[in-house]
Amino acid sequence: MSSYWNNYPELKKNIDETNQLIQERIQVRNKDIEAALSQLTAAGGKQLRPAFFYLFSQLGNKENQDTQQLKKIAASLEILHVATLIHDDVIDDSPLRRGNMTIQSKFGKDIAVYTGDLLFTVFFDLILESMADTPFMRINAKSMRKILMGELDQMHLRYNQQQGIHHYLRAISGKTAELFKLASKEGAYFGGAEKEVVRLAGHIGFNIGMTFQILDDILDYTADKKTFNKPVLEDLAQGIYSLPLLLAIEENPDIFKPILDKKTDMATEDMEKIAYLVVSHRGVDKARHLARKFTEKAISDINKLPQSSAKKQLLQLTNYLLKRKI
Amino acid sequence: MSSYWNNYPELKKNIDETNQLIQERIQVRNKDIEAALSQLTAAGGKQLRPAFFYLFSQLGNKENQDTQQLKKIAASLEILHVATLIHDDVIDDSPLRRGNMTIQSKFGKDIAVYTGDLLFTVFFDLILESMADTPFMRINAKSMRKILMGELDQMHLRYNQQQGIHHYLRAISGKTAELFKLASKEGAYFGGAEKEVVRLAGHIGFNIGMTFQILDDILDYTADKKTFNKPVLEDLAQGIYSLPLLLAIEENPDIFKPILDKKTDMATEDMEKIAYLVVSHRGVDKARHLARKFTEKAISDINKLPQSSAKKQLLQLTNYLLKRKI
Repeated sequence: MSSYWNNYPELKKNIDETNQLIQERIQVRNKDIEAALSQLTAAGGKQLRPAFFYLFSQLGNKENQDTQQLKKIAASLEILHVATLIHDDVIDDSPLRRGNMTIQSKFGKDIAVYTGDLLFTVFFDLILESMADTPFMRINAKSMRKILMGELDQMHLRYNQQQGIHHYLRAISGKTAELFKLASKEGAYFGGAEKEVVRLAGHIGFNIGMTFQILDDILDYTADKKTFNKPVLEDLAQGIYSLPLLLAIEENPDIFKPILDKKTDMATEDMEKIAYLVVSHRGVDKARHLARKFTEKAISDINKLPQSSAKKQLLQLTNYLLKRKI
Repeated sequence: MSSYWNNYPELKKNIDETNQLIQERIQVRNKDIEAALSQLTAAGGKQLRPAFFYLFSQLGNKENQDTQQLKKIAASLEILHVATLIHDDVIDDSPLRRGNMTIQSKFGKDIAVYTGDLLFTVFFDLILESMADTPFMRINAKSMRKILMGELDQMHLRYNQQQGIHHYLRAISGKTAELFKLASKEGAYFGGAEKEVVRLAGHIGFNIGMTFQILDDILDYTADKKTFNKPVLEDLAQGIYSLPLLLAIEENPDIFKPILDKKTDMATEDMEKIAYLVVSHRGVDKARHLARKFTEKAISDINKLPQSSAKKQLLQLTNYLLKRKI
């Protein structure tokens, strides 16, 4: 994914400079932690949030833009994302993230909890420096809360076979779509775009975020460890029932019940059985169908944007993302 | 401790109203979490930080004070404190906090990590609403960072017999004194006190915080489970070498080395042996001596404050805190 940006030299330059700033900001006394943070923030990350931010900023008025301000906001988005990733890994006991050892598997969960917290303060500094006198301070606070509420919702719904699709959608709208929405909206706003473009940017970001998460959850059922840099069926093992499973349960709850009732006692074969049943009960197909609906909404809104090379790139990037197989 | 405020009706009223606001702000969809948060924030807490905040605010000009603003800031201090406590408990695997089950022992570490994070967002909201246009936004961001750096320092120094007293002091100045300093300084500033009083308030808060933490660490070696609402020698069990032990090691490193070298393999008898040796090697006495120095600095600065009933109460509270046996 990171090589994707090579096709867009200006965007690539923006993303590289954002990474540079992130590296400067994550310096801490403990050099081991700094190295781990540095790896997490620069290495395999897709940097999608800064990318969407910058693409939408191009819809504004370039002459009036403050490049330092934009860079800080782009960095704040990636930092907030990485902070929540680190805390997710503590919770999941994940050994790997982006192909590297997670902070918690390398240094223990104690360091990981504080490292995530520390990134929240870096995030906090960056938005204070870049948008203290704008309504976006409050919007950021609200977004951070929504992201965490999404994570809490997801935790709360674990092992719940009765949960509806709307519960799943609410959880992912918080944990994933919210930050895509924020990135896109901030890009348009701080880039100096028209009010209507800012509004559209929020919708587009949100719908892309929804699709992105649904596709990620589909990959959990269809990808294998080799092509996808994280263990598959990981969510299922933790009792997180994502969209493909929920849609398949709708088709035939009784066939899933005896296996899911085992909860934490599910063996690898049980999980493989579930994965097979999810596909054969059209869970994956139906999830793809729903993802397509979100994509269509996003693309229809992108088409309403003023003609520009940014619009073209947004369409290309959206199509690329939504077709990824790994 | 909470009953102590009964002697000061005005302060008691302020603290009760602050608690009320905290209860309003910690409402979340998940009612179990809300209940746990409510217990943590209202129940056994000493609410020292809001108390110091309000005492210092009385040194200002009461007529110009914005009571809503003050209440939000007082609440932000307690919320930040509780957020870090929750994450500490995740790290320590502590079963109890303030005599109640910790969030992590009740709901699991996953919920505890997110609950702490969620409180950071409540903190963030409160300061945005109360001080967005003041230099204290940046000061809060810095303080939060220092608190976390203090915790990280402490983690990093675990099981390190070579650490110096200055390492310990740096860690506690971050993890404890910084928030007392912030509370006191904000009290004076937002209460409308003179610039010099704001400066003094910061010093006083810092030195009280240092003493407070040292006394807490002494209690770990001298109190028992019955009088002190948390397991004693808890820090030692986790490889955190606090001041009494460090000072005793200075007296005779060789006597401690063979036992401390066991690290996580120390048995209860080993820890009791250490506790005995800490006392017999004057670790507790010397720690008390150092605590007294910080107290004297604090009291000398309190004496420089303008005559007022707040000044009298500050002296009383400081003396009370610093004499507590449990």
